[in-house]
Amino acid sequence: MYVDIGNALSSVATPGVSCDSLERLDERVADAHERIERGITDREFGYAALALPEDTDADVIETAVEPLDDIDVDAVLTVGIGGSALGAATVSGALGPGSAGTFVLDNVDPRRTARLLDDLPLADTAVHVVSRSGTTAETLANFLVVRDAYEAEGVDWTERTVVTTGPDGPLRTLADEEDLPALDVPDGVPGRFSALSTVGLVPAAIQGHDVSGLLAGGQAGRESLSGSLFDCPAYALGAISYALEERGASQHVCMPYSEDLEFFAEWFAQLWAESLGKDGLGQTPVRALGATDQHSQLQLYRAGRHDKQVTFVRPREHPAVPIPETDVEGLSYLGGSTLGDLLDAEFEATEASLAAAGLPNVRVEIDRLDAESVGELLYGYEAACVLAGELMGVETFTQPAVEWGKRAARGLLGGGEFEEADAVAEKQRLLVE
Amino acid sequence: MYVDIGNALSSVATPGVSCDSLERLDERVADAHERIERGITDREFGYAALALPEDTDADVIETAVEPLDDIDVDAVLTVGIGGSALGAATVSGALGPGSAGTFVLDNVDPRRTARLLDDLPLADTAVHVVSRSGTTAETLANFLVVRDAYEAEGVDWTERTVVTTGPDGPLRTLADEEDLPALDVPDGVPGRFSALSTVGLVPAAIQGHDVSGLLAGGQAGRESLSGSLFDCPAYALGAISYALEERGASQHVCMPYSEDLEFFAEWFAQLWAESLGKDGLGQTPVRALGATDQHSQLQLYRAGRHDKQVTFVRPREHPAVPIPETDVEGLSYLGGSTLGDLLDAEFEATEASLAAAGLPNVRVEIDRLDAESVGELLYGYEAACVLAGELMGVETFTQPAVEWGKRAARGLLGGGEFEEADAVAEKQRLLVE
Repeated sequence: MYVDIGNALSSVATPGVSCDSLERLDERVADAHERIERGITDREFGYAALALPEDTDADVIETAVEPLDDIDVDAVLTVGIGGSALGAATVSGALGPGSAGTFVLDNVDPRRTARLLDDLPLADTAVHVVSRSGTTAETLANFLVVRDAYEAEGVDWTERTVVTTGPDGPLRTLADEEDLPALDVPDGVPGRFSALSTVGLVPAAIQGHDVSGLLAGGQAGRESLSGSLFDCPAYALGAISYALEERGASQHVCMPYSEDLEFFAEWFAQLWAESLGKDGLGQTPVRALGATDQHSQLQLYRAGRHDKQVTFVRPREHPAVPIPETDVEGLSYLGGSTLGDLLDAEFEATEASLAAAGLPNVRVEIDRLDAESVGELLYGYEAACVLAGELMGVETFTQPAVEWGKRAARGLLGGGEFEEADAVAEKQRLLVE
Repeated sequence: MYVDIGNALSSVATPGVSCDSLERLDERVADAHERIERGITDREFGYAALALPEDTDADVIETAVEPLDDIDVDAVLTVGIGGSALGAATVSGALGPGSAGTFVLDNVDPRRTARLLDDLPLADTAVHVVSRSGTTAETLANFLVVRDAYEAEGVDWTERTVVTTGPDGPLRTLADEEDLPALDVPDGVPGRFSALSTVGLVPAAIQGHDVSGLLAGGQAGRESLSGSLFDCPAYALGAISYALEERGASQHVCMPYSEDLEFFAEWFAQLWAESLGKDGLGQTPVRALGATDQHSQLQLYRAGRHDKQVTFVRPREHPAVPIPETDVEGLSYLGGSTLGDLLDAEFEATEASLAAAGLPNVRVEIDRLDAESVGELLYGYEAACVLAGELMGVETFTQPAVEWGKRAARGLLGGGEFEEADAVAEKQRLLVE
C-alpha cells in the first residue's frame, strides 16, 4: 500500500497540515503504536483484529467449504448485516466473481429479497449465514425466508449452507442439528474488523480466490506497522485523517477509481463511522466513485465548504481494454488508448483539480486488484482507523449508540417490553401533504 | 409525496428550526415560488425542467423504442455518465426490472466494462446511449467499446441502439448515418434535472413501464407547487434543508428504506451537490440505506457531531413476504410477521432514535413504488432543490467548477493543449510506502 499525503499539506490545502505539525504529531504516533502493539500481542478486545492475518487459518476455511465441491456452485449468497456482510462483499467484490457470483442479503427489503430469491439458481447457490449471536433479527428473518425458498423448490439447503457464528445461540444449535459446516467467529474482533477472518473469507474460498494470499497481504500490512507515520502507510493515512479532522475536515470522502472497490467504500464507511463516530467527534464517511462522481460530486468538492478530506483509492495497474480507433471528428484522440488510460487521466486530472482548489486530498494506491494487495489494503485501513481512534482518544471498538434503536425495534415487533418503543408513538409531527 | 418535518423543529433537534422562524421563512418561500413559476412559464434555462411533465411526450418515446419489439429484449444497457445515466438508473431501479434487466455503463473502468460485456446476452440487449454534446469522452469511449463487442459477436448493434442527443454532434451524425431511432434531449434542462424526459425514460419504456404514469406523477408534483411550505411537500423539504444548513447541518444524509431506491439516493446526491455546491455553500449529500446502514452509520449519526440532516425516504406499502414461523428460542417473535413489518419497525425505531439523540431528521413518504409515486418523488426533489437554490441565492443550474478537471483530462489524453494538464505534473508529493 502506498499513501501520498502531499496534497494534504498546508502548502497545498486548507485545511492542511504543516510539516512541523506532522513532526510533532509523529511523537504521538510512536506512543500510540506502542499501545497498539501491546494490544495486538495480548489479543486485547478489538486490537485482536490486527492479529487476524496470523490467527486466521486458511486451511480451516477451505476444509469447511469442501463439501460444496459436490455442487456446481454458480452463486454465493451471504446472509448477514453490517460487519457480518460487508467484509465478505468487499473481499469478493474487489477480487471479482471468480467461479461464482457474489450476492448479499443484508437488508430486510421484501421486494429485493423476493426478486433475488426468484432470480438465483438455488440448486447452484451456496449460502453463507453469519451472525455472532445467532439472533440478529434481520439476518435470522432473511435466513428463514431463504430456507423456505429452497424447500419450496425442493432443493436441499443443508447441502448448500455454511454457518459462521459464536460458540452458542440458535445458529450454532441449527448447525449442530443439521450437521452443517460451521466456523467460529474470531474472539475479540468486532464485526467491522473481521474481513480477514472466517466472517469475510468464506465466500472468497467458495469462489476459488486465494485465501492464503489475502492473509499474506494482511500480514505484509502487519509487518509494515512501525512507530512513525513517515515509515508506515497505514499510520500516514490514520494520522493525516486525524489531523485534518482536527482542522475542520469533518467529512472523509472515500473515492475509489475502480468499480470493484464500491463495496470497499461501504466497508470503509462502516469502519470509520462506527469506530470513530463518538463523543461528538468522527468524520462522516462519504462514499464516492471515480470517474463517475466527477460528474456528480466534484462541483461541490471544488466550490463548496472546505470541510472535507477526499481520499482516492486506486489500483496502479488495469487490464487492457483498448478503445477502438474512430474517425469521428473530435473523438479521434480517444482511439488507440485504453479505458485504463482514460480512467488514469481522469483520476490525475481530478486529483489536481482538488489541489488547485485547495481541498485536502490523499492518494492511496495498491499495485493491482489481487489477493495480496486487497488483503494489505483492508489491513491498512483497519490499522489507520485504530491509530486515528488512539489519537482521538475514543473507544474505537464499541458502538453503544446503536442499542437504543435495537431495543425500540424489538419492542415494536412484540419481542418484549422496551421503553424505547414507547417513544416512537410520541413522535412530533408536522406533516405537509 | 408526504413530507413530515416535525423532527427538524427546535423543540426536538439541534440544529432545529423554531416554528416562528419557519413562519418568517415562509414569506421568502412565497417570493421564491413566484420566481420559480415565472421561470417555468417562460421555460427559462433550468426552470424548464419543472415543465417536463407537461413537455415530455410519452408517445414519442414509446414510438422510438417500437423497433426493439422485434428483438426479445432481456437487458437494457444505458451508456452515459452523470445526469445522462442517473435519471434512467433511478427510474428503472425504483420500478424494478420489468421485462428487461437494468444495466448502466457510467464509468470507464476496464475490469467492470469487460466483465459486463462478457456477461450480457448481447443479442438480447438494447443499448441507450446518451450525451447532449455527443462528445462526452467517457460515454463515447464506452460506446465505441460496446459497438466493438457487438461486432465481435456478430450481432447487429444498429438494430438494438437508441440514441438521445442534442441537435448536432457525433452521436447525431451517427444516428443519421445508421438510421438509428434518435430522440432529442430537452432544451434548457441540465442533465441532473432530466429524469422525466427522453434522457431518463427510454429504458423504462423498453422495460414496459408506464411512462405516462411517471409523467402524470410529475404533473401531480407540478400542481402541488404553491406559495407556502406548509402546503407544498416539495417546498417543505427544500425550505427545511435550507434552514438546517444555515443552522449547521452541512451534510444531508439521504437514507431510503428500500433497496430499489439506492439509485435514487445517488441521483439525489448529484442533484444536490451540483446544484447547490457553490459559493462556499451546499450540503454534502451522503448516501445511506435503511435498514442496512443502521449497522454502519447510526452510531455516528447519534453520537457524532450535530452537523447532519437525515432524510428518510420510504414507500408506505410493501409487497407481503412472510417470515416463516420458527420454534427457535428467542426468535419466535419474528415468525408470522413479514419482512415489511420488520423493515417498518426498524425504520420507526431509527427515526425515533435520532429524535431521542436530538439529530434533525425528515420523513419523505410515497404511497408505493409505482410509476405515479416515483414520478412525483423525482419531481418533488427537483422542486425542493430549486427552492433551496433560490433561498441560498446560488446559481442552481450550472456547474462551472467541473470544467477545470475536464480540460486537464483532455490535455493528458492528447486532446489539445491545456494549461491545467501541466498542473498535474507539479503535484506535491509526500509518499509513504
